[in-house]
Amino acid sequence: MTDRPRACSIANALAIVGERWSLLALREVFLGVRRFDQIARNTGASRDILTARLRKLVEAGVLEKRQYEQHPPRYEYVLTEPGRALHPVLIALMDWGDRYVTEGPAPTVWRHSCGEVFTPRTVCECCGEPVRLADMTLVRTTRLPG
Amino acid sequence: MTDRPRACSIANALAIVGERWSLLALREVFLGVRRFDQIARNTGASRDILTARLRKLVEAGVLEKRQYEQHPPRYEYVLTEPGRALHPVLIALMDWGDRYVTEGPAPTVWRHSCGEVFTPRTVCECCGEPVRLADMTLVRTTRLPG
Repeated sequence: MTDRPRACSIANALAIVGERWSLLALREVFLGVRRFDQIARNTGASRDILTARLRKLVEAGVLEKRQYEQHPPRYEYVLTEPGRALHPVLIALMDWGDRYVTEGPAPTVWRHSCGEVFTPRTVCECCGEPVRLADMTLVRTTRLPG
Repeated sequence: MTDRPRACSIANALAIVGERWSLLALREVFLGVRRFDQIARNTGASRDILTARLRKLVEAGVLEKRQYEQHPPRYEYVLTEPGRALHPVLIALMDWGDRYVTEGPAPTVWRHSCGEVFTPRTVCECCGEPVRLADMTLVRTTRLPG
Protein backbone atom coordinates (compact mmCIF):
# COMPACT_ATOMS: atom_id res chain seq x y z
CA MET A 1 0.00 0.00 0.00
CA THR A 2 2.77 2.47 0.86
CA ASP A 3 4.29 1.85 -2.56
CA ARG A 4 1.23 3.22 -4.33
CA PRO A 5 1.29 6.79 -5.66
CA ARG A 6 -0.37 9.41 -3.51
CA ALA A 7 -4.07 10.05 -3.97
CA CYS A 8 -4.12 13.75 -4.80
CA SER A 9 -6.57 16.46 -5.77
CA ILE A 10 -3.79 18.29 -7.63
CA ALA A 11 -3.37 15.24 -9.86
CA ASN A 12 -7.15 14.99 -10.23
CA ALA A 13 -7.42 18.66 -11.15
CA LEU A 14 -4.59 18.34 -13.68
CA ALA A 15 -6.39 15.42 -15.32
CA ILE A 16 -9.10 17.94 -16.27
CA VAL A 17 -7.25 21.22 -16.80
CA GLY A 18 -3.58 20.19 -16.87
CA GLU A 19 -2.97 20.78 -20.53
CA ARG A 20 -1.46 24.03 -21.63
CA TRP A 21 -4.09 24.84 -24.25
CA SER A 22 -6.94 24.01 -21.89
CA LEU A 23 -5.85 26.65 -19.41
CA LEU A 24 -5.15 29.19 -22.15
CA ALA A 25 -8.61 28.59 -23.66
CA LEU A 26 -10.11 29.09 -20.22
CA ARG A 27 -8.12 32.30 -19.87
CA GLU A 28 -9.86 33.61 -22.97
CA VAL A 29 -13.32 32.76 -21.68
CA PHE A 30 -12.47 34.55 -18.41
CA LEU A 31 -11.47 37.55 -20.55
CA GLY A 32 -14.91 37.47 -22.17
CA VAL A 33 -13.83 35.81 -25.44
CA ARG A 34 -16.34 33.06 -26.15
CA ARG A 35 -16.09 32.08 -29.79
CA PHE A 36 -13.89 29.41 -31.25
CA ASP A 37 -12.17 31.55 -33.89
CA GLN A 38 -11.26 34.26 -31.43
CA ILE A 39 -10.05 31.78 -28.82
CA ALA A 40 -7.87 30.13 -31.48
CA ARG A 41 -6.43 33.47 -32.58
CA ASN A 42 -5.79 34.80 -29.08
CA THR A 43 -4.13 31.63 -27.80
CA GLY A 44 -2.28 30.61 -30.95
CA ALA A 45 -3.58 27.04 -30.53
CA SER A 46 -4.04 24.91 -33.62
CA ARG A 47 -7.70 24.35 -34.48
CA ASP A 48 -7.46 20.58 -34.04
CA ILE A 49 -5.92 20.78 -30.59
CA LEU A 50 -8.27 23.53 -29.50
CA THR A 51 -11.30 21.52 -30.65
CA ALA A 52 -10.14 18.53 -28.60
CA ARG A 53 -9.38 20.63 -25.51
CA LEU A 54 -12.70 22.48 -25.60
CA ARG A 55 -14.60 19.23 -26.03
CA LYS A 56 -12.85 17.77 -23.01
CA LEU A 57 -13.61 20.86 -20.92
CA VAL A 58 -17.28 20.66 -21.93
CA GLU A 59 -17.42 16.94 -21.10
CA ALA A 60 -15.83 17.64 -17.71
CA GLY A 61 -18.46 20.28 -16.95
CA VAL A 62 -16.02 23.20 -16.85
CA LEU A 63 -17.39 24.93 -19.94
CA GLU A 64 -20.83 24.91 -21.52
CA LYS A 65 -21.21 25.07 -25.31
CA ARG A 66 -24.19 27.25 -26.06
CA GLN A 67 -25.86 27.96 -29.39
CA TYR A 68 -26.31 31.70 -29.89
CA GLU A 69 -27.43 31.75 -33.53
CA GLN A 70 -29.65 29.38 -35.49
CA HIS A 71 -28.93 30.19 -39.15
CA PRO A 72 -26.13 29.48 -39.57
CA PRO A 73 -25.66 27.57 -36.30
CA ARG A 74 -23.08 29.34 -34.15
CA TYR A 75 -21.82 28.45 -30.70
CA GLU A 76 -20.08 30.13 -27.83
CA TYR A 77 -18.38 28.78 -24.71
CA VAL A 78 -19.40 29.94 -21.27
CA LEU A 79 -18.03 29.10 -17.84
CA THR A 80 -20.03 26.81 -15.59
CA GLU A 81 -19.83 27.21 -11.82
CA PRO A 82 -16.89 24.74 -11.61
CA GLY A 83 -15.31 26.70 -14.45
CA ARG A 84 -15.64 30.02 -12.66
CA ALA A 85 -14.09 28.40 -9.60
CA LEU A 86 -10.85 28.01 -11.58
CA HIS A 87 -10.29 31.76 -11.33
CA PRO A 88 -7.82 31.44 -8.40
CA VAL A 89 -5.78 28.89 -10.38
CA LEU A 90 -5.39 31.24 -13.34
CA ILE A 91 -4.70 34.21 -11.06
CA ALA A 92 -1.98 32.29 -9.20
CA LEU A 93 -0.31 31.22 -12.46
CA MET A 94 -0.49 34.76 -13.85
CA ASP A 95 1.02 36.26 -10.71
CA TRP A 96 3.88 33.74 -10.65
CA GLY A 97 4.52 34.26 -14.38
CA ASP A 98 4.53 38.04 -13.93
CA ARG A 99 7.04 37.85 -11.11
CA TYR A 100 9.38 35.07 -12.22
CA VAL A 101 9.09 34.41 -15.95
CA THR A 102 7.84 37.34 -18.01
CA GLU A 103 10.47 39.93 -18.84
CA GLY A 104 9.36 43.54 -18.59
CA PRO A 105 5.97 44.82 -17.44
CA ALA A 106 3.01 42.49 -16.83
CA PRO A 107 1.24 41.85 -20.16
CA THR A 108 -2.20 41.70 -18.53
CA VAL A 109 -3.26 44.11 -15.83
CA TRP A 110 -6.50 44.07 -13.83
CA ARG A 111 -7.94 46.66 -11.49
CA HIS A 112 -9.83 45.58 -8.40
CA SER A 113 -13.05 47.28 -7.35
CA CYS A 114 -11.14 48.84 -4.43
CA GLY A 115 -9.45 51.05 -7.02
CA GLU A 116 -5.98 49.53 -6.97
CA VAL A 117 -4.18 47.48 -9.59
CA PHE A 118 -4.94 43.89 -8.65
CA THR A 119 -2.33 41.69 -7.03
CA PRO A 120 -3.50 38.40 -5.52
CA ARG A 121 -2.68 37.05 -2.12
CA THR A 122 -3.56 33.61 -0.81
CA VAL A 123 -4.79 33.64 2.77
CA CYS A 124 -6.24 31.17 5.26
CA GLU A 125 -10.01 31.36 4.86
CA CYS A 126 -10.44 31.03 8.59
CA CYS A 127 -8.04 33.58 10.09
CA GLY A 128 -7.29 35.69 7.00
CA GLU A 129 -3.52 35.52 7.46
CA PRO A 130 -1.32 35.23 4.34
CA VAL A 131 -0.28 31.64 3.78
CA ARG A 132 3.32 30.78 4.50
CA LEU A 133 4.67 27.29 4.01
CA ALA A 134 6.10 27.34 7.54
CA ASP A 135 2.58 27.85 8.95
CA MET A 136 1.19 24.67 7.37
CA THR A 137 1.22 21.30 9.10
CA LEU A 138 0.32 18.15 7.23
CA VAL A 139 -2.62 16.35 8.82
CA ARG A 140 -2.84 13.44 6.42
CA THR A 141 -2.10 12.20 2.94
CA THR A 142 -3.53 9.03 1.47
CA ARG A 143 -2.41 6.53 -1.16
CA LEU A 144 -4.24 5.31 -4.22
CA PRO A 145 -5.80 1.88 -3.68
CA GLY A 146 -3.61 -0.97 -4.92
CA MET B 1 -0.61 43.08 -34.80
CA THR B 2 -4.12 42.36 -33.47
CA ASP B 3 -3.96 38.92 -35.06
CA ARG B 4 -1.02 37.85 -32.91
CA PRO B 5 -1.67 35.69 -29.84
CA ARG B 6 -1.88 37.44 -26.54
CA ALA B 7 1.32 37.99 -24.58
CA CYS B 8 0.54 36.27 -21.31
CA SER B 9 2.21 35.41 -18.02
CA ILE B 10 -0.06 32.37 -17.66
CA ALA B 11 1.36 31.02 -20.92
CA ASN B 12 4.88 31.92 -19.75
CA ALA B 13 4.33 30.17 -16.42
CA LEU B 14 2.95 27.08 -18.14
CA ALA B 15 6.04 26.92 -20.36
CA ILE B 16 8.00 26.21 -17.15
CA VAL B 17 5.58 24.28 -14.94
CA GLY B 18 2.75 23.36 -17.31
CA GLU B 19 3.43 19.67 -17.49
CA ARG B 20 1.53 17.33 -15.24
CA TRP B 21 4.58 15.53 -13.84
CA SER B 22 6.40 18.79 -13.21
CA LEU B 23 3.68 20.01 -10.87
CA LEU B 24 3.34 16.62 -9.19
CA ALA B 25 7.11 16.45 -8.63
CA LEU B 26 6.95 19.95 -7.12
CA ARG B 27 4.09 18.79 -4.90
CA GLU B 28 6.39 16.13 -3.46
CA VAL B 29 9.16 18.61 -2.74
CA PHE B 30 6.62 20.86 -0.99
CA LEU B 31 5.65 17.79 1.07
CA GLY B 32 9.30 17.39 2.10
CA VAL B 33 10.11 14.52 -0.27
CA ARG B 34 13.42 15.38 -1.92
CA ARG B 35 14.91 12.23 -3.39
CA PHE B 36 14.38 10.94 -6.89
CA ASP B 37 13.24 7.42 -5.96
CA GLN B 38 10.67 8.67 -3.49
CA ILE B 39 9.37 11.34 -5.87
CA ALA B 40 9.01 8.67 -8.56
CA ARG B 41 7.15 6.33 -6.22
CA ASN B 42 4.82 8.97 -4.77
CA THR B 43 3.87 10.49 -8.13
CA GLY B 44 3.80 7.30 -10.20
CA ALA B 45 5.86 9.05 -12.92
CA SER B 46 8.11 6.93 -15.11
CA ARG B 47 11.79 7.43 -14.32
CA ASP B 48 12.58 8.76 -17.80
CA ILE B 49 9.86 11.39 -17.75
CA LEU B 50 10.63 12.39 -14.18
CA THR B 51 14.32 12.79 -15.00
CA ALA B 52 13.45 15.10 -17.89
CA ARG B 53 10.95 17.14 -15.85
CA LEU B 54 13.30 17.58 -12.89
CA ARG B 55 16.13 18.63 -15.20
CA LYS B 56 13.89 21.25 -16.78
CA LEU B 57 12.79 22.58 -13.38
CA VAL B 58 16.44 22.83 -12.29
CA GLU B 59 17.39 24.63 -15.52
CA ALA B 60 14.49 27.04 -15.03
CA GLY B 61 15.67 27.84 -11.51
CA VAL B 62 12.61 26.39 -9.76
CA LEU B 63 14.47 23.54 -8.08
CA GLU B 64 18.08 23.15 -6.99
CA LYS B 65 19.80 19.77 -7.22
CA ARG B 66 22.03 19.42 -4.20
CA GLN B 67 24.52 16.69 -3.37
CA TYR B 68 23.96 15.39 0.15
CA GLU B 69 26.32 12.38 0.11
CA GLN B 70 29.74 11.90 -1.44
CA HIS B 71 30.28 8.12 -1.48
CA PRO B 72 28.21 7.05 -3.29
CA PRO B 73 27.13 10.43 -4.75
CA ARG B 74 23.51 11.14 -3.82
CA TYR B 75 21.36 14.13 -4.65
CA GLU B 76 18.23 15.77 -3.39
CA TYR B 77 15.97 18.45 -4.84
CA VAL B 78 15.18 21.61 -2.92
CA LEU B 79 12.92 24.55 -3.75
CA THR B 80 14.51 27.83 -4.75
CA GLU B 81 12.77 31.10 -3.96
CA PRO B 82 10.87 31.04 -7.30
CA GLY B 83 9.99 27.44 -6.52
CA ARG B 84 8.58 28.29 -3.10
CA ALA B 85 6.54 31.04 -4.76
CA LEU B 86 4.60 28.34 -6.63
CA HIS B 87 2.87 27.39 -3.38
CA PRO B 88 -0.31 29.39 -4.22
CA VAL B 89 -0.55 27.64 -7.61
CA LEU B 90 -0.48 24.18 -6.02
CA ILE B 91 -2.86 25.26 -3.26
CA ALA B 92 -5.36 26.63 -5.80
CA LEU B 93 -5.23 23.43 -7.86
CA MET B 94 -5.64 21.27 -4.76
CA ASP B 95 -8.61 23.27 -3.54
CA TRP B 96 -10.34 23.11 -6.93
CA GLY B 97 -9.64 19.40 -7.23
CA ASP B 98 -10.98 18.78 -3.70
CA ARG B 99 -14.18 20.65 -4.46
CA TYR B 100 -14.93 19.62 -8.03
CA VAL B 101 -13.05 16.49 -9.04
CA THR B 102 -12.07 14.22 -6.17
CA GLU B 103 -14.85 11.96 -4.92
CA GLY B 104 -15.07 11.55 -1.18
CA PRO B 105 -12.96 13.34 1.44
CA ALA B 106 -9.91 15.41 0.56
CA PRO B 107 -6.90 13.07 0.19
CA THR B 108 -4.48 15.65 1.59
CA VAL B 109 -5.34 17.81 4.58
CA TRP B 110 -3.29 20.64 6.05
CA ARG B 111 -3.71 22.54 9.29
CA HIS B 112 -2.91 26.24 9.45
CA SER B 113 -1.03 27.73 12.39
CA CYS B 114 -4.30 29.39 13.48
CA GLY B 115 -5.44 25.90 14.48
CA GLU B 116 -8.05 25.30 11.79
CA VAL B 117 -7.97 22.90 8.86
CA PHE B 118 -6.56 24.94 6.01
CA THR B 119 -8.78 26.21 3.21
CA PRO B 120 -7.33 28.82 0.88
CA ARG B 121 -8.92 32.05 -0.20
CA THR B 122 -7.60 34.43 -2.83
CA VAL B 123 -7.91 38.07 -1.84
CA CYS B 124 -6.84 41.45 -3.20
CA GLU B 125 -3.46 42.18 -1.64
CA CYS B 126 -4.41 45.83 -1.25
CA CYS B 127 -7.88 45.77 0.35
CA GLY B 128 -7.99 42.15 1.57
CA GLU B 129 -11.39 41.47 0.02
CA PRO B 130 -12.03 38.03 -1.52
CA VAL B 131 -11.61 38.15 -5.27
CA ARG B 132 -14.77 37.91 -7.33
CA LEU B 133 -14.67 38.00 -11.10
CA ALA B 134 -17.28 40.77 -11.11
CA ASP B 135 -14.93 43.01 -9.11
CA MET B 136 -12.12 42.83 -11.67
CA THR B 137 -11.78 45.30 -14.53
CA LEU B 138 -9.31 44.70 -17.32
CA VAL B 139 -6.80 47.56 -17.62
CA ARG B 140 -4.78 46.19 -20.54
CA THR B 141 -3.73 43.13 -22.43
CA THR B 142 -0.92 43.06 -24.96
CA ARG B 143 -0.10 40.98 -28.04
CA LEU B 144 3.05 39.08 -28.88
CA PRO B 145 5.26 41.00 -31.32
CA GLY B 146 4.72 39.98 -34.95
